[in-house]
Amino acid sequence: MARTAGSHSDITGPRIRGAALKLFARQGYAAVSMRQIAAEVGVQAGALYNYTPDKQSLLFDLMRAHMQELLETWRARPLVGGPLRRLEEFTRFHIRFHLGRPEEVFIAYMELRNLSPENFTVIEGLRRDYEDALEGILREGVAEGVFEVPDPKIATLAVIAMLTGVNTWYRAGGRLSLDQVETIYWDMVRKAVVG
Amino acid sequence: MARTAGSHSDITGPRIRGAALKLFARQGYAAVSMRQIAAEVGVQAGALYNYTPDKQSLLFDLMRAHMQELLETWRARPLVGGPLRRLEEFTRFHIRFHLGRPEEVFIAYMELRNLSPENFTVIEGLRRDYEDALEGILREGVAEGVFEVPDPKIATLAVIAMLTGVNTWYRAGGRLSLDQVETIYWDMVRKAVVG
Repeated sequence: MARTAGSHSDITGPRIRGAALKLFARQGYAAVSMRQIAAEVGVQAGALYNYTPDKQSLLFDLMRAHMQELLETWRARPLVGGPLRRLEEFTRFHIRFHLGRPEEVFIAYMELRNLSPENFTVIEGLRRDYEDALEGILREGVAEGVFEVPDPKIATLAVIAMLTGVNTWYRAGGRLSLDQVETIYWDMVRKAVVG
Repeated sequence: MARTAGSHSDITGPRIRGAALKLFARQGYAAVSMRQIAAEVGVQAGALYNYTPDKQSLLFDLMRAHMQELLETWRARPLVGGPLRRLEEFTRFHIRFHLGRPEEVFIAYMELRNLSPENFTVIEGLRRDYEDALEGILREGVAEGVFEVPDPKIATLAVIAMLTGVNTWYRAGGRLSLDQVETIYWDMVRKAVVG
């Protein structure tokens, strides 16, 4: 079904996405019904179908929006300095961006299995674009003789997994400030890739 | 309900756990019913309750067994060499152990949210025991002046997240052998913690 034009649906859209995000993160995609999402928003289930054709589209929209925002925010940053400086920027950016979106990050990993093959291909492509940003920095550093990285592709995946892991334990107000955490991770990332 | 004694339930137990593991990993805990698990095993739903009191116990048993096996397998290894050698052992062991159990690893991360508070505390404790093994190696290396790690606790979490990340991309028969992958990760881990 086509999306209904007009301001009503412009308001409802973000509320539906917000409700779906919350419920998917809490219960998992397969356990959540369109009826539950509608109840969370406070509309009839039928009203949901004015906004989205089905639950799969809702999941795909959430994951795509998350990846696109990640890419756009990273690309909007000024490109300054050499590979070492940019690697530090990437490290701090990645930690902060992901910590601010725990539900999106959880779903992005957990619900890959529930994407249709075509949707999976799109999300994988966006994920690769983001990985390529880091891999490019690593390759440039290797070319300039600043980094010593035997396999830049694997190093990219290793660094991203390490940084995203902050989401599983960091709580604001704990013993370390966000800036301290970023600095500790940057120390490890730097040493891991510098020869 | 108490577990029925005898050989029949000794055979059924592993099959029930296997079916629950497979279904939880595929659909998520909340979407799976006891009836579905029974159908996967090929028994009546009632027969399941001779083995396990409820779905929560089944999830808890799976997660606890996974963590206990991880800890026992690690502890059963001979303790040889200094911190650097033991860190290499830990790196290679962690990658191999987790790659061999993709469903258990996925559930161990994804379904923490679905554990009852008491069960969560037990699993968290086992997880901490395992983290302590690595943290102990790092602290020993720092004490001996071999490692330079500003925060051994955070370094532990960072290294574990990095290594477990192999599960998200490694496929047997790809361009790198498991031994090559281990060696690349060991190179990064070593450099990250050596001063």
